[in-house]
Amino acid sequence: MHEFVHSMKVKILDIEAGKMISILNQKNANEFGLMALDRIKISKKNGIELHTPVDVTDSFVKPGEIGLFEDVARYLKVTNNSIVTVTPAEKPESVKAIRKKINNQKLNQQELLEIVKDINSNHLSEIETAAFLTAVQINGFDLDETVFMTNALIETGNKIDFGQKIILDKHSVGGTNGRATMIVVPIIAAAGYMIPKTSSRSITSACGTADAMEVLAPVSLSLKQLKDITQKTGGVIAWGGAINLAPADDKIIKIEHPLSLDPKGQVIASVMAKKASVGSKFLVIDLPVGPDTKIKNKIDAEEIAFKFLEVGKKVGIKVEVVITDGTKPSGNAFGAALEARLAMEILEGKKFDDLAKKSCELAGALLELVGDCKQGQGYTKAKHLLESGKALKKMHEIIIAQGGKIVSSKKISEPKFKQIVYSQSAGTIKKINVKNCMEIARTAGAPTDKEAGLVLFVEQGNKIKKKSPIFELQANNKRKLELALNLLKGLPIIELEKNVIGKYYFKNN
Amino acid sequence: MHEFVHSMKVKILDIEAGKMISILNQKNANEFGLMALDRIKISKKNGIELHTPVDVTDSFVKPGEIGLFEDVARYLKVTNNSIVTVTPAEKPESVKAIRKKINNQKLNQQELLEIVKDINSNHLSEIETAAFLTAVQINGFDLDETVFMTNALIETGNKIDFGQKIILDKHSVGGTNGRATMIVVPIIAAAGYMIPKTSSRSITSACGTADAMEVLAPVSLSLKQLKDITQKTGGVIAWGGAINLAPADDKIIKIEHPLSLDPKGQVIASVMAKKASVGSKFLVIDLPVGPDTKIKNKIDAEEIAFKFLEVGKKVGIKVEVVITDGTKPSGNAFGAALEARLAMEILEGKKFDDLAKKSCELAGALLELVGDCKQGQGYTKAKHLLESGKALKKMHEIIIAQGGKIVSSKKISEPKFKQIVYSQSAGTIKKINVKNCMEIARTAGAPTDKEAGLVLFVEQGNKIKKKSPIFELQANNKRKLELALNLLKGLPIIELEKNVIGKYYFKNN
Repeated sequence: MHEFVHSMKVKILDIEAGKMISILNQKNANEFGLMALDRIKISKKNGIELHTPVDVTDSFVKPGEIGLFEDVARYLKVTNNSIVTVTPAEKPESVKAIRKKINNQKLNQQELLEIVKDINSNHLSEIETAAFLTAVQINGFDLDETVFMTNALIETGNKIDFGQKIILDKHSVGGTNGRATMIVVPIIAAAGYMIPKTSSRSITSACGTADAMEVLAPVSLSLKQLKDITQKTGGVIAWGGAINLAPADDKIIKIEHPLSLDPKGQVIASVMAKKASVGSKFLVIDLPVGPDTKIKNKIDAEEIAFKFLEVGKKVGIKVEVVITDGTKPSGNAFGAALEARLAMEILEGKKFDDLAKKSCELAGALLELVGDCKQGQGYTKAKHLLESGKALKKMHEIIIAQGGKIVSSKKISEPKFKQIVYSQSAGTIKKINVKNCMEIARTAGAPTDKEAGLVLFVEQGNKIKKKSPIFELQANNKRKLELALNLLKGLPIIELEKNVIGKYYFKNN
Repeated sequence: MHEFVHSMKVKILDIEAGKMISILNQKNANEFGLMALDRIKISKKNGIELHTPVDVTDSFVKPGEIGLFEDVARYLKVTNNSIVTVTPAEKPESVKAIRKKINNQKLNQQELLEIVKDINSNHLSEIETAAFLTAVQINGFDLDETVFMTNALIETGNKIDFGQKIILDKHSVGGTNGRATMIVVPIIAAAGYMIPKTSSRSITSACGTADAMEVLAPVSLSLKQLKDITQKTGGVIAWGGAINLAPADDKIIKIEHPLSLDPKGQVIASVMAKKASVGSKFLVIDLPVGPDTKIKNKIDAEEIAFKFLEVGKKVGIKVEVVITDGTKPSGNAFGAALEARLAMEILEGKKFDDLAKKSCELAGALLELVGDCKQGQGYTKAKHLLESGKALKKMHEIIIAQGGKIVSSKKISEPKFKQIVYSQSAGTIKKINVKNCMEIARTAGAPTDKEAGLVLFVEQGNKIKKKSPIFELQANNKRKLELALNLLKGLPIIELEKNVIGKYYFKNN
């Protein structure tokens, strides 16, 4: 390497880059033999150093100047017209590792750690991260690499130490409605275990667990609050986005999203790392399978289940995977307040539906896994904890500890506008389209409008007459309610036998 | 799709983005169900519309505001506080096509055209383009796709129409020194054909053809100048970067560079599209093969040669590929002025070395290809055009037409500092390391310092004594000359038999 040191004048660009990058004039870049996204080292006299990729411009940085975004300038502690020295730098080791994955070679623990560290610290550009994730999507991670990636995410993330306490956890791969978490967590805490659950908000569905729990109590908790509340009550239901257990993972998801990348192994590593970070030792995973969920068939589900189990072994988590039916709704509610109310009704003993059953199965599996009861007795014990009111009492404790107020399911807030929708034809319901229910609820304002959503009055297999009520749509914004009703014409919610799509009518005010 | 229209206030960010992107506050993004890099449509009352990916921020754009970079704002003709409407938009078709390539499916003409158009117009983000190129790197393009990509680059690029005239062209895949182009172009033009040659500048080597030609005449020509000069003199040697024949290709190279991606088919499409854009009908391609060039062995070279020929057939260019020896230097010069001087010496008839021979072979192949002479007679005819002084006369015409002045090789400018380097051991030269020669020349200041570089006094196979002069190093900056001399200790230029690396000494002033 020809190592020149160039003295340059800082020009601060009045914006946050959100990534490591500096900008040189095209003339300087040519002189230094640099192309866009080559690396340089920027050094200050006081010894502060930073490696960044460069971008190249013809216009807004003059020759002799180096353009720095505000966040990069802050890091270097420089102001406008500060003098820094610039040296061409080697590509980081992580770029070489990415090249290996592109060439379908296996990565080792050190290489994956370098990649995750450099994603975390923004030392890899989005282009490089995108190339990495595309290569993993195509060439895959084997079991070792999945374990290495899990370890790398654990090492670079935040951690909670509960000491000798036994930590249980639950995860759902998602794609259905129904907040089983809000029933499982109080059951497990009522059984005397700790379950520090972090959940996500909805992105494209009607409601995430964090959205529904937020109807009852604050969910944007700190790492310390997560720990304190769990130690106090046994359980907590927090929004994972605020806690940042695996910060590199958030950046990875941002890159995966625009291309709907879902690289094999990466999702498993992401889940397992977050569980390991809170010290979980026993984990039940709910894999709903169905055409509208993430996992389309049982063969795929079994492959994923196997990997979860194997990675669990390597990182010290005992895993049980429960493959559940994702072809029908999990409870009749879609929308934050409606799903929170249904969970509370189940905890209050007012209802025992599919969602309640599924929750007892998941909680029961956890109780068996931790050795609390014998195989086959978990469900009964979970159901007892639910029916005895112990789970409800625990949920009240959790709500209070998170800073909420106890309200009975009846008192959960209602929206301004409601509209019942009726069937125009008679028949037997062959299928309820969960995806379309979510889309209609979203159009009505869910999840931003907490009270918006829909409640089904029917189940799969029900015989309905003409003019039977099918569901109620709810919203605080009349225009959105109307848009949702309008959308219904194109997105059927029920399918009757013989492939007749249900037709609806509603009184138009 | 739930299609809401949101009214938002423009906040202009005082910087050029150089890409299509707009910025929303996290709160709005959640409300609209958008994640970073999802698409939105921005519309103005006057009907101007723009589809962009969004970025999401917590800080510098408030809820209700949409952040637009200066270039995006200019396109939309908005100022600070202008009101625009924002609607969630579908992913473009090109993103779906990229997904197909990731899934190892074949792309059709329409899909590749959409991808290239959207790269060209910045409607694909760098993340999406990086994913596409990584997928092509791993899954490859077949012959059809290479042809489709070539057509897409032609369709989206600039074109020159020379009417009925026969256009010839020459391309080298690169990796060696020596400016064969500066000898081939005047020979072909002297034979009465048109050869509108565009060349690149050096990125990591000591000198590109555009750098060397610039010693004699301006090379930053417009498309119109390229056409006019070719029509006037038959030949031109211009810098391709200024002419922008395939603008999408420049963006593709920018993304490929940081990961050293070199996707199969893409390089072929890139070369063939640029040749087709200037109307070339006959093309000779020089493929230097050697451990330090782009193509490492003859099997790879033959595979690439086959593809060039096949793609040529489909886009109407008759191609001949000449596989040349890339293991030794092509002429004894490294550096812009030194390489320009050597080319002029050959044209002036003062020298007939390996570079001259290679140039006559390439020009001869072209003359045979176009049917100017019989198979086997091209070399003799090219050599005759060179030795008769006709090629020199043509080169003088070209230099004048490009706006340069005629100078004899003797008068080409010299640097301030020179240093001869001598051998410390005796032996037979087994190998001259071209890559290290380039690195030393670069460290001395090439190609930015036009006069910097090195001239070899020896050739492969020469027997040398102790104290034989090996080469002369030249530079205008004394410090850089010293750095280059210093670098020499680690980067040997000659290898003697029995694996003895040549040792050197020079008088240190």
